[in-house]
Amino acid sequence: MESQKIQSLLERRTIRKYSDKEVSKETLDAILEAAIRGSNCGNMQAYSIIVTRDQKKKEGMLGFHFGQKMVVEAPIVITVCADLNRFHKWCLERGTTEEYDNLLWLNIATIDATIATQSLCTAAEELGLGVCYLGTVNYMARPIASYLNLPKHVVPVTCITLGYPAENPPLTERLPMDAVVHYEEYKDYSSEDINNLYSDFEQLPQSKEYCRVNNQENLAKVFTQCRYKGKDSRHFSREYLSFITDQGFMRNEAEEDNN
Amino acid sequence: MESQKIQSLLERRTIRKYSDKEVSKETLDAILEAAIRGSNCGNMQAYSIIVTRDQKKKEGMLGFHFGQKMVVEAPIVITVCADLNRFHKWCLERGTTEEYDNLLWLNIATIDATIATQSLCTAAEELGLGVCYLGTVNYMARPIASYLNLPKHVVPVTCITLGYPAENPPLTERLPMDAVVHYEEYKDYSSEDINNLYSDFEQLPQSKEYCRVNNQENLAKVFTQCRYKGKDSRHFSREYLSFITDQGFMRNEAEEDNN
Repeated sequence: MESQKIQSLLERRTIRKYSDKEVSKETLDAILEAAIRGSNCGNMQAYSIIVTRDQKKKEGMLGFHFGQKMVVEAPIVITVCADLNRFHKWCLERGTTEEYDNLLWLNIATIDATIATQSLCTAAEELGLGVCYLGTVNYMARPIASYLNLPKHVVPVTCITLGYPAENPPLTERLPMDAVVHYEEYKDYSSEDINNLYSDFEQLPQSKEYCRVNNQENLAKVFTQCRYKGKDSRHFSREYLSFITDQGFMRNEAEEDNN
Repeated sequence: MESQKIQSLLERRTIRKYSDKEVSKETLDAILEAAIRGSNCGNMQAYSIIVTRDQKKKEGMLGFHFGQKMVVEAPIVITVCADLNRFHKWCLERGTTEEYDNLLWLNIATIDATIATQSLCTAAEELGLGVCYLGTVNYMARPIASYLNLPKHVVPVTCITLGYPAENPPLTERLPMDAVVHYEEYKDYSSEDINNLYSDFEQLPQSKEYCRVNNQENLAKVFTQCRYKGKDSRHFSREYLSFITDQGFMRNEAEEDNN
């Protein structure tokens, strides 16, 4: 069975509780090495990886991550950034200029940063460690950038906590394969499709518990009325656009092209 | 040695030439299963995976990928999309609305799509297959979306070719670890840093060959004057912004907030 050969990839879990076991320099270096082995656009490596281990420095990040305790309880926090600053400085040193100060290149660098992050996570998991992605990094990009001294042309993309697991949570449910995989081209969803594809998910005891706790009649309302509210979504999206503009990634869109 | 335990991750190569060996349904299913095991925001799985195997369908994609032959020579092309359409339709069916039609959520879904892609690639490589990322998918997002029937709220993010390798290229050089990893916080680069960090890379025989072939005095100029020109960069960035606006991801930014 092919699936047995990649069992560790198929049975991975997000880890939110970490043991005291120290992550050695050798282990961390191997994990970082795997990160930079991932594919990237034109071998430009348009990302930077910031490793935060100092307890005081991590404590200062707690608020940006909405108080999620993993930030201070995990031995390591890693913030991966889209980075066109290093490339830009190289160009200046070599007497040339680039024009990557636009949304396309932020997107390319975001993808590169995420490939590096996921390669890093897989390496960590293969070595017995556990990780948790913190989506708060996208909401709080500006204060995190300021705290980590990110210069212009650098934007935080992903943040993970890293350490040896002190828990073994059950495997998280996913939508059935048919819900996310399309063959040859995209097949849009009918009402019947949606009802079929989400049914198992909605019937899970945990889903029903979420509805009860949040006092909502269905799971979709838990997401939209409680977890990711419209007002927050609009607010943080504007913050994000304002931040990436200040970081120099909307120049192209703001100015007229005279060429 | 920790690095020996993750040797396959450290020695991976991009594969551009594929053998005739067929990829079985069992193998493809295992790879897709690994893709959806990756972390994602709120377990919303805001992505879709489009598997294209039909030779005629692949031939139609060749132009969008600037004629890169892997598209027709690899047995499988996979396009992974940021997808908030499925979630949106679920909300409609359940009598609620979401407000994810903005840049923040496109960014979140882009990260989710990329995590799924990289999990897929690692699983494929562990099973003896090879992959190649095609960055052209970001330049040509609109025509690719049209060709694959992507509805509103869906944007192609990554594209890979997949198959058994018919080549074993040398390991690609990367910048030294010090160039991309920062400890505790970002340390910006001095002129001296840049010169030191890029020096080995610039001295590679292949780098010198790129300069010769492209008639440029240094490698930075090969990138900026030949490979990723300013005019193209501006053009494709505007195309990208226009496309994501049409796909419904800039509504928040375009309209006044009356709440």
